[in-house]
Amino acid sequence: MAGEDRALAGGAKHIDFQTDPSRYRHWKLDVAGDAATLTMDVDENAGLFEGYQLKLNSYDLGVDIELADAVQRLRFEHPEVKVVVVRSGKNRVFCAGANIRMLAGATHAHKVNFCKFTNETRNGIEDSSENSGQRYITLVSGAAAGGGYELALATDHIMLADDGSSSVALPEVPLLAVLPGTGGLTRVVDKRKVRRDHADFFCTTEEGVKGKRAVAWRLVDEIAPASKLEAKLTERVKEFSSVSPRNATGQGIKLTPLARTIDDNGVRYGLVSVDIDREGRIATVAIKAPEAPPPADIDGMVKQGASFWSLQVARELDDAILHLRLNELGIAMIVFKSHGDPAQVLAHDAFMEQHKAHWLVNEIRHYWKRVLKRIDVTSRTLVTLVEPGSCFAGTLAELVFAADRSYMLIGSREGDNRPPPSIELTAMNFGPYPMSHGLTRLASRFQADPADLERARAAIGKPLDAEEAEELGLVTFALDDIDWDDEIRVFFEERASFSPDSLTGMEANLRFVGPETMESKIFARLTAWQNWIFQRPNAVGEDGALRRYGTGQKAQFDMTRV
Amino acid sequence: MAGEDRALAGGAKHIDFQTDPSRYRHWKLDVAGDAATLTMDVDENAGLFEGYQLKLNSYDLGVDIELADAVQRLRFEHPEVKVVVVRSGKNRVFCAGANIRMLAGATHAHKVNFCKFTNETRNGIEDSSENSGQRYITLVSGAAAGGGYELALATDHIMLADDGSSSVALPEVPLLAVLPGTGGLTRVVDKRKVRRDHADFFCTTEEGVKGKRAVAWRLVDEIAPASKLEAKLTERVKEFSSVSPRNATGQGIKLTPLARTIDDNGVRYGLVSVDIDREGRIATVAIKAPEAPPPADIDGMVKQGASFWSLQVARELDDAILHLRLNELGIAMIVFKSHGDPAQVLAHDAFMEQHKAHWLVNEIRHYWKRVLKRIDVTSRTLVTLVEPGSCFAGTLAELVFAADRSYMLIGSREGDNRPPPSIELTAMNFGPYPMSHGLTRLASRFQADPADLERARAAIGKPLDAEEAEELGLVTFALDDIDWDDEIRVFFEERASFSPDSLTGMEANLRFVGPETMESKIFARLTAWQNWIFQRPNAVGEDGALRRYGTGQKAQFDMTRV
Repeated sequence: MAGEDRALAGGAKHIDFQTDPSRYRHWKLDVAGDAATLTMDVDENAGLFEGYQLKLNSYDLGVDIELADAVQRLRFEHPEVKVVVVRSGKNRVFCAGANIRMLAGATHAHKVNFCKFTNETRNGIEDSSENSGQRYITLVSGAAAGGGYELALATDHIMLADDGSSSVALPEVPLLAVLPGTGGLTRVVDKRKVRRDHADFFCTTEEGVKGKRAVAWRLVDEIAPASKLEAKLTERVKEFSSVSPRNATGQGIKLTPLARTIDDNGVRYGLVSVDIDREGRIATVAIKAPEAPPPADIDGMVKQGASFWSLQVARELDDAILHLRLNELGIAMIVFKSHGDPAQVLAHDAFMEQHKAHWLVNEIRHYWKRVLKRIDVTSRTLVTLVEPGSCFAGTLAELVFAADRSYMLIGSREGDNRPPPSIELTAMNFGPYPMSHGLTRLASRFQADPADLERARAAIGKPLDAEEAEELGLVTFALDDIDWDDEIRVFFEERASFSPDSLTGMEANLRFVGPETMESKIFARLTAWQNWIFQRPNAVGEDGALRRYGTGQKAQFDMTRV
Repeated sequence: MAGEDRALAGGAKHIDFQTDPSRYRHWKLDVAGDAATLTMDVDENAGLFEGYQLKLNSYDLGVDIELADAVQRLRFEHPEVKVVVVRSGKNRVFCAGANIRMLAGATHAHKVNFCKFTNETRNGIEDSSENSGQRYITLVSGAAAGGGYELALATDHIMLADDGSSSVALPEVPLLAVLPGTGGLTRVVDKRKVRRDHADFFCTTEEGVKGKRAVAWRLVDEIAPASKLEAKLTERVKEFSSVSPRNATGQGIKLTPLARTIDDNGVRYGLVSVDIDREGRIATVAIKAPEAPPPADIDGMVKQGASFWSLQVARELDDAILHLRLNELGIAMIVFKSHGDPAQVLAHDAFMEQHKAHWLVNEIRHYWKRVLKRIDVTSRTLVTLVEPGSCFAGTLAELVFAADRSYMLIGSREGDNRPPPSIELTAMNFGPYPMSHGLTRLASRFQADPADLERARAAIGKPLDAEEAEELGLVTFALDDIDWDDEIRVFFEERASFSPDSLTGMEANLRFVGPETMESKIFARLTAWQNWIFQRPNAVGEDGALRRYGTGQKAQFDMTRV
């Protein structure tokens, strides 16, 4: 089910993205006052798959699932935390990066999906710092190599022990013939602004850089002798805490386990369901509107906690998308549907807009932003069907604009007494959910004429039927009952017949119109090159560097420069 | 020598980028008053390689070499031309795009290099429109499919016959399982601002779009019935000519054939030489300074024509880079050197700055910009060595900043009575030569602190020795005579031992710090994905779509979505 040649460890049937600190095998999360410490102490015998050991704090997807969970919980469960320290629980090594044996034996699809998720986790750390005021400090004592240094790069401040041996390194090119693809190349020059020729030297030097040169070249923020490291760290934590804009107060809310059943036909959550049509290669993701109005006030929302509709849907949708990405590789298309009363979706949006200054509402809004970004970079054709009974309003309407194509029914269906479907825009469609390249989905959509964006804005609060939505450019095609079934069927069949690779490449290009940001460059320039290299015999062939690593045999390269 | 399994046609030993209208086999260039017409009429029996026919105005690299030559000559030889019409010389087809049989049988390296060059040609058309005021109009009568439509996309205005059959199409995904990778996907959404869902439909519809929908979706600018097409075209030419900012006057200058000898050890031009060290996998490109001051005035420069130093070097360097890219695939590194009197280089830069308003100087400056951009996207490690006797001043200093690494000698060598080397900056390093992502090389270099850029600017006109250059951040390493030989040797040997693929990916990331533009997105997001797809069995495998095209057998796809 996981699409791996390798078996999942412990007889697991699928990769599970749900965890909590009580189940962590690789990380320890300690909170003391306004500072948290995330200690990486990888259990080498607890790999996600059979067949490799996670030595020297190297990681696989399982390790990163725990990290992502911890970063998320810190935001929701720990309003008091203003600083997070990332450090190693092992002696003489911070983190050796992604596990090579795991990579060498992984399918191409798993390699690509592994990198995508780990990139999202690191982007999530930066998002937490930027938007939740939880500042991250990395303490490197020992070697931070490859993905280990890339993890540090995602944090705000890197401290390196000045002990003659602790170092940072990106040895992928000289050692493994692949790229530092989890943001490494991009963050070195775009975030830390290391000069490109220094970066060239650094990224081709197996042993990395240490001491004063690491500071002079901007690879780390400071060094300190081993004897003074902890004191310096305490100082930095205090300093970062004192300037943190985090304004969260009161109790956090518990991210309780998702109610979820998985079987071969799909996944069912409380508000989200995933139906798998294996023959048609379609996964239908249906989202249910709230059945009741939002709570009267903030206290009511905090009391609802993880079952507050806006948060529960985001969590379920996030898990569903990850499940489809990693466990359902044969699926060509994700079809979004919704059902329920749009008025209740709108009421929840209004609540989220009214209380946006509250820290928990802020977290939920940024979480929705991240879930939608995750959808944007999911390599499946995304289709949204707007039919009678649906509730694509406000936040949920983003699924119409995230889709590669959307179809909306004109009028009702014969024998169906529900009213014709509508789309309704809210403030949520015009700001809080930018894509990774910085534009909202509607701003991306209306690049040709900014007046179109203003026309859409003027329609906020007005239920739009299919013809109005089409006229405003909000849906791809408005179809009546007579054409609907045939058109959709032909489209699905045709789409499912195309090469999945060409669709992945096409969608990755068409979805990101206009500008790029550091984040979008990581998914575009960096990831696309890495995926290419992940296909090249010099890296993944029998004699390639990934396969030969650790065997004592030198890799054999085709020296043609392409 | 060309690195192809296939033999070059006519027993050619290498791919030659030099041509002129008298030798064109595929294009006709007619100039009448202020309008030129480029007629594509591909000779199907004049492919660059053996083994395929160029039916239906499909093209290979040879066809594009002629197009690039024509675009270039129009700028230099035809100051009077303000509008260029691109049209087909064949009935019922505008252009069927890149030849599939050629692609199916080409090595991976050739596919990648072919796309890179055709992208540069199309960028060159846009550069001509933007910076030389030569506006391009495409007249599509018949089918413009794939690369045919991508060519049209590079022009300013697309006219489509409204005859019930003429159409524009990007059928790569449904037909060939590859991308419209010559800018197609990017230009559709980023340049023409076609809505992304319309683009999704368009790029998955084999037969393309015609008539009113093509206009409504912004795929073309206008349609006209066949009977009125020529009259409309005449009207548009007049209109575009009347608003063209082209301000060139007087006679054009003739781009006379380059004096060049090629042998197995390299290439020798008048001012540029290429020495090939096959064992070390190094090509040393040496550039010679002018031996005399620039002409006294514009008339003197026009009289020198193609032998004006600044222009001759640009042409020779351009040809040398293309030669290395396509014909020397085993070369890992290009090492730039220079020799001669820096004062004469500076004098030529001063001339180019003083007369920048003159159309021919403007052309030469933009040409240098394009040559340097070509170097930036060349997949070879770029190294610049600044040694005694060198003349890396102004324009030539851009080769120091374009390099992945640069080394500069401190002082002189024992027994060498030449003075220590210097670098000198001019206005040319601070504006006229932006990289494809919009920043100058120095602005890219000094992303960390804009004050560094200002420090460099303050050094304009001052010869900088190695220690000064290093202190200002202009070179990677300043070395003295004792270390030089060993350090350089070790670096060269080590670099040559790395996987060429990982170097290509690394360099493509580190060279482009910061923002992206439509042009740089084409070389990053689009090209990197296409290169990935060019490795995937669904496209290039025995049963893949590229190989099976035209055989009557359907392609077999692995339906795993990656």
